[in-house]
Amino acid sequence: MLAQLPLQNTTVALRRAAAEDVPSIVDLLAADQLGATRDGVTTDEDLQPYLNAFGLIDADPAHLLLVAPDGAQVLATMQLSFLPGLARRGALRAQIEAVRVRHDYRSRGLGAALFEWAIEEAHRRNCALVQLTTDKSRADAHRFYERLGFVASHEGLKLKLLR
Amino acid sequence: MLAQLPLQNTTVALRRAAAEDVPSIVDLLAADQLGATRDGVTTDEDLQPYLNAFGLIDADPAHLLLVAPDGAQVLATMQLSFLPGLARRGALRAQIEAVRVRHDYRSRGLGAALFEWAIEEAHRRNCALVQLTTDKSRADAHRFYERLGFVASHEGLKLKLLR
Repeated sequence: MLAQLPLQNTTVALRRAAAEDVPSIVDLLAADQLGATRDGVTTDEDLQPYLNAFGLIDADPAHLLLVAPDGAQVLATMQLSFLPGLARRGALRAQIEAVRVRHDYRSRGLGAALFEWAIEEAHRRNCALVQLTTDKSRADAHRFYERLGFVASHEGLKLKLLR
Repeated sequence: MLAQLPLQNTTVALRRAAAEDVPSIVDLLAADQLGATRDGVTTDEDLQPYLNAFGLIDADPAHLLLVAPDGAQVLATMQLSFLPGLARRGALRAQIEAVRVRHDYRSRGLGAALFEWAIEEAHRRNCALVQLTTDKSRADAHRFYERLGFVASHEGLKLKLLR
């Protein structure tokens, strides 16, 4: 357990994801408006690439895949990565990817509590900044990030590769 | 040596950066319009945090710090990182940071050749996408990336941490 995240009238545990959480995390990814066409598991064969990716994430201390569990289910997930670089006097930067909160836990402070923990962890690891990109179609997300102090100073560019 | 990058009438070598390249890379970072206030080395003490960061980058096969050298100088540099994640069926993504080309080598195709190599390397490592963020004030850079096929689909959000 990494923390107890405060919500109204309750708390939610936060811990590193385990392999057993992967199907539930993928369900959250697939429930997303943009992820629906990209992610999902219906067979064991579908699960394997996700488990392989989990193995890479879990083996590298630079990555922290977080879950807020509720029994065998996952209420929220986030990947937090700590990336070295030369710029800004050799600063470590914390990068946030793949944030999802289950629909019935939105607007209840869980997302904000998760980000607050992530930002504190970035401080503890002496990062110079926290960065993320968010799809321009997610207007609600932009307001959420701006309330947390993020500045939309950059364009986020993506080049999809055909495989 | 990783490649010979083609330029008009000549080629430029591309290789992994070595610790000896760090002062020259930092000079390139400091020569940049936005990096000037953030980076630079005047004393050995200034160099140490950059060398520490280089050690982290160099020790991790997920990161590739590239230089196009010219004798003891560096004409161009780029950090290419390969980041695992669960989204997009456990896709690896290639992330580009800290791209700089020395002023007298701009508009000569070196930046494009460096990106073409990076995109090919992302293909070789079976990445699903290549991603980067660029400061919104860098209008020339946006046109350059769009010519390479990047789509400005995301907002790039940064939160600076006080240390």
